[in-house]
Amino acid sequence: MPKRAAGAILTGLSLDRTQGTPLHRQLYDGLRDAILSQRLMPGERLPSTRTLAEELGVSRRTVVDAFLQLYAEGYLDGRIGAGTYVAQTLPDDFLIAATPSPPLFAASSASPQLSQRFLAQRAHTDPVLAQFQTDKEQGRAFLLGTPALDEFPNDLWGKIATRIGRGTAAHANSYQHAAGHLPLREAVASYLGAARGVRCRAEQVLIVAGAQQAISLIAHVLIDPGDSVWMEEPGYFGAKGALLGAGALLVPVPVDGEGLDSAQGRRLAPNARLAFVTPSHQMPLGVTMSLPRRLALLEWARDSNAWIIEDDYDSEYRYASRPLAALQSLDTHERVIYTGTFSKVLFPSLRLGYIVAPSALVDSLTAARRLMDSHSPLRDQLILTEFMREGHFERHIRRMRALYQERQSMLLEAARRELAGVLDIAPADGGMHLVGYLPLGTDDRQAALEAKRQGVRAQALSYNYLEAPERSGLVLGYAAASPAEIIEGVRGLATALRRI
Amino acid sequence: MPKRAAGAILTGLSLDRTQGTPLHRQLYDGLRDAILSQRLMPGERLPSTRTLAEELGVSRRTVVDAFLQLYAEGYLDGRIGAGTYVAQTLPDDFLIAATPSPPLFAASSASPQLSQRFLAQRAHTDPVLAQFQTDKEQGRAFLLGTPALDEFPNDLWGKIATRIGRGTAAHANSYQHAAGHLPLREAVASYLGAARGVRCRAEQVLIVAGAQQAISLIAHVLIDPGDSVWMEEPGYFGAKGALLGAGALLVPVPVDGEGLDSAQGRRLAPNARLAFVTPSHQMPLGVTMSLPRRLALLEWARDSNAWIIEDDYDSEYRYASRPLAALQSLDTHERVIYTGTFSKVLFPSLRLGYIVAPSALVDSLTAARRLMDSHSPLRDQLILTEFMREGHFERHIRRMRALYQERQSMLLEAARRELAGVLDIAPADGGMHLVGYLPLGTDDRQAALEAKRQGVRAQALSYNYLEAPERSGLVLGYAAASPAEIIEGVRGLATALRRI
Repeated sequence: MPKRAAGAILTGLSLDRTQGTPLHRQLYDGLRDAILSQRLMPGERLPSTRTLAEELGVSRRTVVDAFLQLYAEGYLDGRIGAGTYVAQTLPDDFLIAATPSPPLFAASSASPQLSQRFLAQRAHTDPVLAQFQTDKEQGRAFLLGTPALDEFPNDLWGKIATRIGRGTAAHANSYQHAAGHLPLREAVASYLGAARGVRCRAEQVLIVAGAQQAISLIAHVLIDPGDSVWMEEPGYFGAKGALLGAGALLVPVPVDGEGLDSAQGRRLAPNARLAFVTPSHQMPLGVTMSLPRRLALLEWARDSNAWIIEDDYDSEYRYASRPLAALQSLDTHERVIYTGTFSKVLFPSLRLGYIVAPSALVDSLTAARRLMDSHSPLRDQLILTEFMREGHFERHIRRMRALYQERQSMLLEAARRELAGVLDIAPADGGMHLVGYLPLGTDDRQAALEAKRQGVRAQALSYNYLEAPERSGLVLGYAAASPAEIIEGVRGLATALRRI
Repeated sequence: MPKRAAGAILTGLSLDRTQGTPLHRQLYDGLRDAILSQRLMPGERLPSTRTLAEELGVSRRTVVDAFLQLYAEGYLDGRIGAGTYVAQTLPDDFLIAATPSPPLFAASSASPQLSQRFLAQRAHTDPVLAQFQTDKEQGRAFLLGTPALDEFPNDLWGKIATRIGRGTAAHANSYQHAAGHLPLREAVASYLGAARGVRCRAEQVLIVAGAQQAISLIAHVLIDPGDSVWMEEPGYFGAKGALLGAGALLVPVPVDGEGLDSAQGRRLAPNARLAFVTPSHQMPLGVTMSLPRRLALLEWARDSNAWIIEDDYDSEYRYASRPLAALQSLDTHERVIYTGTFSKVLFPSLRLGYIVAPSALVDSLTAARRLMDSHSPLRDQLILTEFMREGHFERHIRRMRALYQERQSMLLEAARRELAGVLDIAPADGGMHLVGYLPLGTDDRQAALEAKRQGVRAQALSYNYLEAPERSGLVLGYAAASPAEIIEGVRGLATALRRI
């Protein structure tokens, strides 16, 4: 085969010294593209490295580096001193296809075929969940599920981090136990025992990346596609997303003033595998599940060998009375899988939470965690352990409890002044949000949209329903917003609601 | 109903001042148990708080606290000054059941019904994965998939953590974007472009909790139960676990000296949805996939609209030549989902890795991450971004590359001296492990067990096969072990292998 002039090869090769990519890499890319698109044919001889270096105005080293790489990857053949050739072994068929296709041609990948479970969960819940992660520029009135971010003692947390970094032993860099750092599990068990009446040994505590992962894991381990799950109606959309991800068939069980009614659940789906409840402070309605309802729910689970997920997401904040003991504390038959998060008491970007599992499920949930993503990062677990041991944790909760109670009062007061007739908000004994009801016939999604135009976040209550909602309303988080933001937010809401 | 003497109530109530649990909580627990087990009957009147306090030798405040809690939870009824009664509304039926059952009675929960997908994945892969998280006491020769833990600059990392902690803005405490911190995605895109030839925009990079989560997410989004997936035979067990978790039907496609053979894959399962490959350094055999095989694999994916997961888990460590460009860099039709981890170049307990997704999958994978566990913790992402920007990252890789090359030589040299005739180890161009072949007919699981008795970790090669393995061998990681540990480990291995 004739030796080609370097000039022909140089066509289409453009080296750009202002780019971050090294020159030898650019040359490699250019030659490879030429080979794959058959501008350089199999068996074709390349000019010497010296010639090419001169033509391109680069060092010979640059050309040698590019050639070596192409040799190593099989694009080039040749023996030292005998010339360099484009490899013969490239499958012809591919070479043509590899010619960069025009953008329109790649349409096959534009709407890929996705799994049924993913489509189900995404359709139902992602738009709502995604709101937490967007619109960072909007104000904090009335952001849901988010604590007072600027009240967190970042400095203190950072100091503990430094102290721990200094003393990090090699094994702390290694893979860890999927169930979490044992001293943290002990601290959580002891905290939950004292604060929530949860009865457990540290071995039953699994450290997870928050409640969303807790529910994903539980669903993954317990639910087969088509299994029925009782879901509070209305209920927490994040939980629905996680449950749908395992193929669950969600059965909406009505929530009234006493919480989820398991008599109705029994009528609708007696053989459900699982029930999802928020007994301390129902999400979103704010109801506390009554004792008879708690006992009836446990009885159903015991009778039908079903499981209960108790999501105790914001029970730390109870204003009117002492916090109620967890449903788990009444469970004498180990049917309750208790879960909670540090997102609401520390900060959401920490991504730490916990499951307290019945003994029979501890090993399975641990194995599932290992297979899902190994374990939670260790350093944050070490910092949190110290933060709890040194008493900062309970101190921070007490401080936030007082703060959020004040913020709730502020929201209620402002609402009394500004929202009479357009939004009916009642106080709540605890938590970080209130529900305001809209006048009959008002579309709450439209109201939420109008609020957004006024720079106010308000979640449409109807988002939380699987079936047609009985009443329309707005769910308003008040913990993250400053007093000024609350006042301003209520004004914005008033403007929005008088407009629709 | 007659007023009972406090004495009767006190039976079964034992307050323990040496316990961590507050006295009012102990009293609450005791009274609640008495009510639930019907030692105190519905409607029964309780002694006054004063009487009870005297009898128990505690402050009246303690008794009042316990009573208030029981009132709040619905166990007690009564009006101020008119006496305190056990509530009438407790469902009778439950009360009997709630009597603590003898341990033997709780057998119903001993072997719970678990999901099919979980049982499949656990049975196949968890025993192997779990090894990473146990036996912390054993030596580091020849731990797999683990870098030189004591060589990581913990101090430097800690200092960056402190600097970042000091400047943490409120929004950094909030929920973050599920795809990860954008500056980190940019740093990863630029690093992968330069080091691995990966062609992507930062928007295609998703920060995840390591390769295990990457594969779990991809499988969750793309695989329906029963879908066929090409799996390298032998192949990485962690990936199998994640794929089985989505209900995949794993099709073992043989790996020879050129890597996975897609001609065989086409014969076995032409319509597979996905192929899992480790082209740079096959896990476990260490082969580099040849260029014709790479092109053929891409061609199949393009033809059949299938996806390819390229797990580039340890490609940073290449000794004999420059690292090969990633398969992704050849992919002109966006069929390759590229994934890598920081576990092998930084440290495993960090739990950070990345996916470079074809544009068509970015949104779906992001939504799936949000529904699985929201996002990776932010602070570690902030630290890592700085660590990369300041050049520590590439410096650390260069240092480790030299170190691991040395350790591989050391292992090979020691093996030449000590293991002749019992284990046949060949050098490798890269990576953090070597495969040693056992004499024909030797059971590698028994060999691994015997090695364990000698304090040496060695993974049976057969663990990596779905079908009957062709040859038996041991997979030995050498990156985590010190020179002394390597020498000692080889001696232990020699003893073990001469014993079986």
